[in-house]
Amino acid sequence: MITTDILIIGAGPTGLFAVFEAGLLKLKCHIIDALPQPGGQLTELYPKKPIFDIPGYPSVLAGDLVDNLMEQIKQFQPGFTLNEKAETIEKLEDGTFIVTTHKGTKHHAKAVAIAGGLGSFEPRKPLIEGIEAYEENGVEYFVKNPEQFRDKRIVIAGGGDSALDWSIFLANVASEVTLVHRRNEFRGALDSVEKVTELKHQGKINLVTPAEITNVFGDGKVEALELDIDGEKSILETDYFIPLFGLTPKLGAIANWGLEIEKNAIKVNNALDYQTNIEGIYAIGDINTYPGKLKLILCGFHEATLMCQSVYNRLNPGKKYVLKYTTVSGVDGFDGTRKEAEKQVVKAIE
Amino acid sequence: MITTDILIIGAGPTGLFAVFEAGLLKLKCHIIDALPQPGGQLTELYPKKPIFDIPGYPSVLAGDLVDNLMEQIKQFQPGFTLNEKAETIEKLEDGTFIVTTHKGTKHHAKAVAIAGGLGSFEPRKPLIEGIEAYEENGVEYFVKNPEQFRDKRIVIAGGGDSALDWSIFLANVASEVTLVHRRNEFRGALDSVEKVTELKHQGKINLVTPAEITNVFGDGKVEALELDIDGEKSILETDYFIPLFGLTPKLGAIANWGLEIEKNAIKVNNALDYQTNIEGIYAIGDINTYPGKLKLILCGFHEATLMCQSVYNRLNPGKKYVLKYTTVSGVDGFDGTRKEAEKQVVKAIE
Ligand SMILES: Cc1cc2nc3c(=O)[nH]c(=O)nc-3n(C[C@H](O)[C@H](O)[C@H](O)COP(=O)(O)OP(=O)(O)OC[C@H]3O[C@@H](n4cnc5c(N)ncnc54)[C@H](O)[C@@H]3O)c2cc1C
Ligand SMILES: Cc1cc2nc3c(=O)[nH]c(=O)nc-3n(C[C@H](O)[C@H](O)[C@H](O)COP(=O)(O)OP(=O)(O)OC[C@H]3O[C@@H](n4cnc5c(N)ncnc54)[C@H](O)[C@@H]3O)c2cc1C
Repeated sequence: MITTDILIIGAGPTGLFAVFEAGLLKLKCHIIDALPQPGGQLTELYPKKPIFDIPGYPSVLAGDLVDNLMEQIKQFQPGFTLNEKAETIEKLEDGTFIVTTHKGTKHHAKAVAIAGGLGSFEPRKPLIEGIEAYEENGVEYFVKNPEQFRDKRIVIAGGGDSALDWSIFLANVASEVTLVHRRNEFRGALDSVEKVTELKHQGKINLVTPAEITNVFGDGKVEALELDIDGEKSILETDYFIPLFGLTPKLGAIANWGLEIEKNAIKVNNALDYQTNIEGIYAIGDINTYPGKLKLILCGFHEATLMCQSVYNRLNPGKKYVLKYTTVSGVDGFDGTRKEAEKQVVKAIE
Repeated sequence: MITTDILIIGAGPTGLFAVFEAGLLKLKCHIIDALPQPGGQLTELYPKKPIFDIPGYPSVLAGDLVDNLMEQIKQFQPGFTLNEKAETIEKLEDGTFIVTTHKGTKHHAKAVAIAGGLGSFEPRKPLIEGIEAYEENGVEYFVKNPEQFRDKRIVIAGGGDSALDWSIFLANVASEVTLVHRRNEFRGALDSVEKVTELKHQGKINLVTPAEITNVFGDGKVEALELDIDGEKSILETDYFIPLFGLTPKLGAIANWGLEIEKNAIKVNNALDYQTNIEGIYAIGDINTYPGKLKLILCGFHEATLMCQSVYNRLNPGKKYVLKYTTVSGVDGFDGTRKEAEKQVVKAIE
């Protein structure tokens, strides 16, 4: 059982920043995310694109913002349960919670902050009967760990940035990379399209278009695929099949947690602390709704901050909280590090 | 008469960022501030100190954050009325407002956002009878424009960072710099204390401590000061007297605008849009209060954003607003510039 003060569901920018604000209040956080890496939409959907409305950043690449947030929260040593979906929640008599993932990992926390964005990201799957049996046995919808593909034969399917970028990256890892797309045209950054073109000419990527993978074969794990080029079927031997057809967010099991849901979002008390109808469960960032709600990153930061204050007050009843400025009081990490402004001196000038 | 869509009172981080969010909605802003430069508390009180809780910035100097905000809003060409205090407000029949400063400058706006922080910063003045007559006639509480002191004799009084830093800066501008402090010890960054020591030894700063300026003389403008060293009085000829004893924020005239005030702050509807009890007047950032309010920079950013949305809806009744991501739609400046993410290409790979 993993234990923590605040269990955060969702490692998007909102969930990540919550770790920092909680840390200032000496509260520990643990984060669950269905994706293999932190960053939420920013990492998964547009890591190389600039965002222009993060306050104080005339422009910042989404991936860099996530890196900066990870750096900012590092000293508060958040725990991560990645690649797992939060599935059930149980409120104990003492007001604490147990959250269990679809893989059975249990988390015990004093408060729960749902920072689930548009929902947990689930891959769009190819329409191949029986493909489930091969999932995680050669069929991979995410590249969780590129080393898994070292010196293996892989087939990537898809026509967008993910398919292009992973083909490029894995061209230097796998023994053989085949990229299959049902159209001739790819849709992605010019850079990526050019790089794939180059790798194709160097013989490092086999490009097959327009074509589709229509079947998977193998004894317990993927051994070959059926390739359909213009109605002509052929067999392609491979160790892995990686369909990268994009992700769709699904609210999923959270919809059954007894929370008030409106238009796929969780209603919260925005006039106070972004708490839901269940005491001790908060919803922050894109996943919540209230009058005037804007699904913006900067709003999630504010909501995370007020949520942490509320948790602090709930866990320390009667204790009067005095706001401390980071500039004035510094930041003490759970790892023993301290950040602080240079001290002033009081000194006569001789 | 200056006309604008949103008149912002206060050029602190909250007021500055409001210009950006308004700009995204094609609303023009004009800012009034009592100080000679934008940045509010950050510029005036701790420009060289790091802030650790700006989301996405593991550490950022307060002065740099202000520079970045100025860069971010530049393309929306905000107007500034600096060195002036907003003093009176009048609501016209058509629901628009006229705000007049203590110098009589009039501003006509469709909405007013008070982002006044802790109030307008007013200098602590030395206890010298009749000093008012010399204000702006040789007695200066702010260094608005250093060039004003080129080749002049100046006397700076004070023992903190401002007194140290301006003595250093003006040592290369004025013909003669005298620094007077009533104690021997200065309180400031080690750097600054060392630099003043060095300039003193080079003969570029005359240091007089412990001492006080106890009188001002001159015909219509400052010509000499009375210096008191341990009870011994002497006369010091000079062109300027710059007392830098710190600033105190004063809510001032805003307290009489008919707004609901609680503990020196303006009550707002945080459940919706940070509007005050007067329709069309909003209060954002440190100056507002509501249950759970935190006086933090990041909260001001969120409040500014929701305020702009509310103004937009008020000015465009019935028009359905669709949130646009800056990453996806880019940012069109009022100066004709455009920021945008690199376009995707749709391209076959040959
Ligand atoms: C193309 C694009 C451009 C954008 N541009 C901008 C912009 O310029 N400015 C701006 O402010 N915003 C922009 N946005 C929106 C911004 O990305 C979101 O507001 C932001 O990502 C919300 O952050 P979050 O942390 O609330 O949620 P997310 O980033 O969505 O993260 C939520 C995370 O929770 C996980 N999760 C959900 N449910 C579960 C569960 N049950 N178990 C485990 N994990 C779960 C998900 O897998 C996901 O990783 C853009 C979005 C897109 C798609
Ligand atoms: C030493 C110190 C350290 C801090 N550290 C942190 C930190 O680490 N993190 C954090 O989040 N916050 C910190 N803060 C607080 C932070 O500075 C404030 O939250 C922030 O400045 C508020 O921004 P604002 O724009 O609302 O107001 P302000 O920055 O106060 O700006 C308000 C402006 O309005 C002007 N004004 C007011 N009334 C009038 C009027 N009638 N006419 C004309 N002008 C007017 C004032 O002159 C001022 O320039 C710190 C503050 C101090 C003093």
